[in-house]
Amino acid sequence: MFTILPIKGFIDQIDGFFCDGIHAGLKPNGNNDLGFIYSDTPCEVEAVFTKNRFQAAPLKHFQMYEKGFKTNFVLINSKNANAMTGQKGIDDINEVFASLNHDLLNPIMSSTGVIANPLPKEKIIKGANSFNLSAKSGENLSKAIMTTDAYPKTCMYEVKLQDGSSFKIGAVAKGAGMINPNLATMLCFICTDAAIKREDMKELLEANSHSTFNAISVDGDTSTNDTVLLLANKKSNAYDKEAFKEALRLVMHDMAMLMVADGEGAKKAVAFEVVGAKDDKQAEIAAKALSNSLLVKTALFGEDPNFGRIASTIGASQIECDETKLVISYNDVKVYENGVILFDEACEARAAEVLKNSEYKVLCNIGIGEGKFTAYGCDLGYKYVEINADYRT
Amino acid sequence: MFTILPIKGFIDQIDGFFCDGIHAGLKPNGNNDLGFIYSDTPCEVEAVFTKNRFQAAPLKHFQMYEKGFKTNFVLINSKNANAMTGQKGIDDINEVFASLNHDLLNPIMSSTGVIANPLPKEKIIKGANSFNLSAKSGENLSKAIMTTDAYPKTCMYEVKLQDGSSFKIGAVAKGAGMINPNLATMLCFICTDAAIKREDMKELLEANSHSTFNAISVDGDTSTNDTVLLLANKKSNAYDKEAFKEALRLVMHDMAMLMVADGEGAKKAVAFEVVGAKDDKQAEIAAKALSNSLLVKTALFGEDPNFGRIASTIGASQIECDETKLVISYNDVKVYENGVILFDEACEARAAEVLKNSEYKVLCNIGIGEGKFTAYGCDLGYKYVEINADYRT
Repeated sequence: MFTILPIKGFIDQIDGFFCDGIHAGLKPNGNNDLGFIYSDTPCEVEAVFTKNRFQAAPLKHFQMYEKGFKTNFVLINSKNANAMTGQKGIDDINEVFASLNHDLLNPIMSSTGVIANPLPKEKIIKGANSFNLSAKSGENLSKAIMTTDAYPKTCMYEVKLQDGSSFKIGAVAKGAGMINPNLATMLCFICTDAAIKREDMKELLEANSHSTFNAISVDGDTSTNDTVLLLANKKSNAYDKEAFKEALRLVMHDMAMLMVADGEGAKKAVAFEVVGAKDDKQAEIAAKALSNSLLVKTALFGEDPNFGRIASTIGASQIECDETKLVISYNDVKVYENGVILFDEACEARAAEVLKNSEYKVLCNIGIGEGKFTAYGCDLGYKYVEINADYRT
Repeated sequence: MFTILPIKGFIDQIDGFFCDGIHAGLKPNGNNDLGFIYSDTPCEVEAVFTKNRFQAAPLKHFQMYEKGFKTNFVLINSKNANAMTGQKGIDDINEVFASLNHDLLNPIMSSTGVIANPLPKEKIIKGANSFNLSAKSGENLSKAIMTTDAYPKTCMYEVKLQDGSSFKIGAVAKGAGMINPNLATMLCFICTDAAIKREDMKELLEANSHSTFNAISVDGDTSTNDTVLLLANKKSNAYDKEAFKEALRLVMHDMAMLMVADGEGAKKAVAFEVVGAKDDKQAEIAAKALSNSLLVKTALFGEDPNFGRIASTIGASQIECDETKLVISYNDVKVYENGVILFDEACEARAAEVLKNSEYKVLCNIGIGEGKFTAYGCDLGYKYVEINADYRT
């Protein structure tokens, strides 16, 4: 028995964690572009990284530490990904950390922004040396890590265990721009004071990835920099594996949903729920095909219940299916059932109503098995093109 | 030895072929929406269809004929795909053909347009009964099969063999809207009077698909209706397998390139040439990932030589690669070579010049093997969103 309560504030609400963000001169518009997370007690750390074959320099730098290392510091910059920068990219990180006046243990760097530009290390060193490590300015940090995000992404929970003890867990993240199927970076920093066991960290992080970040992104198609970090300073004595797993799932789900809702220019967060597939893997293939289909995404942007595109995308995904067994609904409005088009004028009007919402579900029952998966996506409109046609400049 | 000469005109330039297109009341704007191809001599026919698991009714109808059947008539409508319409969709086609006053042998239907709407068969019957089968109005036909195409797609060649004999081959097509990776329909009707052997037809059609239609679309991800038909009435005595293969390749390449150049709203036709991959299959995976990447396509639209997105897409495609061996160029402007960023101000200016063209090449040398493949794609801009947000209405 345990209770999980959402609480206000940022990760600096957690005992021992400090953070801040500043403008260090990387973003021409004067917005925050450099931030840190500091813990006054060394943290156990576990990471999930992009599967992109070209991992950015910060990811390689992290993996050069000995397995099981502890850290007390994460430095995060936006506007420059330090990716495709080769050995120089790693050397630059080492030079940055060697030039800092703080007392750091195995510091970690995390970067997001334009790929294949040298890291502006002088600005970063100058900025990082100005940090006050006892700051509790989560909002500044949340803004410093943004690129094309429309708003900061953060959440906090307190978990109370049956014995009266409690721990906190929270996160700050930046969105994967467009989310699935492509390349904008997602960074997520999860902090906790729970007395989690070292060996549980990777297990629980991975266990929760499938239905959260992997349902929106961070699978085959990922950026060079995608990173999920879990930092545990264990300042609370409280820990319960089941409670932690569920709290971690909530944190990861919250962050994933905020990323979807803030897909570049997106106005709609859509759950593509596929059930009745031959198996879960086939359901996942179909659900992700739907959440990635340009024709589906633009139809959702146009609030057009053009379910033919949904059917066609399922067929194109090459999963086992049969048009006489397929059912398609928008929320509870069935438009196609077992080969019969239910889409008369009244049905279309009700479906169009659903599509006016900012959140809804596209449900597809393949009708041949027990496999299920829900992928989360968003619409795609003019704003996406605007953002991405000149993101670099 | 043979000569292949492009000639003016439409497929009605070929002996024995007739065609026309009319407005039958399917498109609300009064444009042509129904057309036919007629041959006064029964044709051998071969087809390549979509791999989509939900094949549209016309495709199923075709496959109900006995293998090796001959035909003298293809009826083509736009605005309605007759897909996801079940047995009724097939019955509708049979009813249409049973209601026509023409003397038809195994008539074929081909449809493109909105999925999951019942076929407006009365309008189609009325329109088709008004056809004059001795018309030679290729331009009318080419317009009747258009959906979101900006212009008709057609080509014609005359092939002269060493013995002085000759045959003609030509095509009329409609574009795959957005082309790869998605679902807009491509239809292509290739007609010839060559005395081609029955057994060569499928072989040559498939042999040429890989570097033409399969390089732009029509593979895993396809619409419910994608169709390439080859009709041979053999009114010429001329035939040479090598000559025919090359002429057919030219026709299919022409049509594929016109489709790419006319991707919905596209302003740029881009060849993504991947060389030096581990094998041809890996080169194909990377080249298609590039031609399908939203972030790459929007950068091309913005004329932004943001080659980091190109590198990242290659890494995300999961092919074998190594950033210290990768070379990226826009035409002959190298921007990244073996882990070194060549992208100084002068280089960027030259790369930006290349991107102003309406046709150019993105060349990626993976640097580890001999595999190569070229995929053809286009940019993606506001117009694409506009077209697809309200295509159905």
